[in-house]
Amino acid sequence: MSERIYTAGLVVIGDEILSGRTHDKNIAQVASWLQVQGIRLAEVRVVPDVIERIVEAVNALREANDYLFTTGGIGPTHDDITVDAVAEALGVDVIVHPTAREILENYYADKGGITDARLRMARVPKGAELIANRMSGAPGIKIGNVHLMAGVPHITAGMLDALTGTLQGGKPLIAETVGCWTPESEVADILRQVEQTHASCQIGSYPFFREGRVGANFVVRSTDRGELKSCVDSLCDGLASAGFDFTPGGI
Amino acid sequence: MSERIYTAGLVVIGDEILSGRTHDKNIAQVASWLQVQGIRLAEVRVVPDVIERIVEAVNALREANDYLFTTGGIGPTHDDITVDAVAEALGVDVIVHPTAREILENYYADKGGITDARLRMARVPKGAELIANRMSGAPGIKIGNVHLMAGVPHITAGMLDALTGTLQGGKPLIAETVGCWTPESEVADILRQVEQTHASCQIGSYPFFREGRVGANFVVRSTDRGELKSCVDSLCDGLASAGFDFTPGGI
Repeated sequence: MSERIYTAGLVVIGDEILSGRTHDKNIAQVASWLQVQGIRLAEVRVVPDVIERIVEAVNALREANDYLFTTGGIGPTHDDITVDAVAEALGVDVIVHPTAREILENYYADKGGITDARLRMARVPKGAELIANRMSGAPGIKIGNVHLMAGVPHITAGMLDALTGTLQGGKPLIAETVGCWTPESEVADILRQVEQTHASCQIGSYPFFREGRVGANFVVRSTDRGELKSCVDSLCDGLASAGFDFTPGGI
Repeated sequence: MSERIYTAGLVVIGDEILSGRTHDKNIAQVASWLQVQGIRLAEVRVVPDVIERIVEAVNALREANDYLFTTGGIGPTHDDITVDAVAEALGVDVIVHPTAREILENYYADKGGITDARLRMARVPKGAELIANRMSGAPGIKIGNVHLMAGVPHITAGMLDALTGTLQGGKPLIAETVGCWTPESEVADILRQVEQTHASCQIGSYPFFREGRVGANFVVRSTDRGELKSCVDSLCDGLASAGFDFTPGGI
């Protein structure tokens, strides 16, 4: 019986990532969170603060996946254009969401009150629901399979937390790692053979260079715990027979 | 006179990034390097170790940009399929590059010698040149406007270094930052007005939360040093007139 696999796309919006000024933290954060929900991150696109580029990426990835997430561009300033871009991608108007407005009015009541700029954060594509934001006032936005989240990582984290358990997923992909202080080129044949005999598992080989030595971690992934164990056992047997030292759990 | 703007795309290849296991370091590294070359990173796509997905991303971004870079998937193991994918994208065969073979034979001479797995790293799309790799044996690959680089960040860094000054670029985008311990929503109007009166500059607003307080950095970008200075001066004047404390250089 083949499992239904759920996938997601992620669009990271922001000139600051493309300029190299800011190191993105949301890809890894969203990827790890999706794993736990039983959803696979199938593709990420990082695009600049340009409406047409966001529209194109949003349409490509929302159609190709069960879910789409965006990070960035939902704040109060002129470069925050994600809501407009997603509305355009979906062919709907932008409206002020009454609950979002209320949330912002309350949040800013003792911080100088609501202003036009702050009210921008209550704008949503027509038909959208809100995603709770317990870190700061402005909520995230959910419309259809599209989830608009903040760009600031700790706020994104709060929004992911609010979404936890609300999205239909499949069996989570589980992984086990075996590490070796050996150049991956020496074990390539073993990896290939083991993967070929365990069709439901994938083996990734991730070389590293640490403390002046090379090595690699081999990550075995599967949705089936039994198959995963059998594949890891075969890999360890193969490495042992060929005389390699290895570290279950990875290095 | 309008400047010719040179752009690049980046395709990051690797299940390890999409699974959240590895935090990507190459996006920021490639982005920063491109800035100095006078080339703008226009889009990044992170795709899994699947030939068709790599082909699709490579073709989309090499056609839309002056240059394309890829990171990852050029090692010796079964999951290293970038060369095959790029050859397919370009409609050329995969061959063993004689110089790459020689480099690998020399590199591995005192490390157990060449093997079939290691020879995989001499495979290139037909017509390709090599990019020097002074960190480890296997070279990077350049074919047309496509540059295939390693996934391990310090090896990627060496390959970028080897490419420095070899790509035609435009005027570099220069940036100056002004920071404020103020919620960005309070200065949104000032930002918008200043940007509107300085058409050749873009202003990005990057909020943060540190030491229990919110603030934002405003990054002004332009290819023209004079315009940049004038825009930064206007921004500082605007912030000062409205009574905000600000920090030239950013916080």
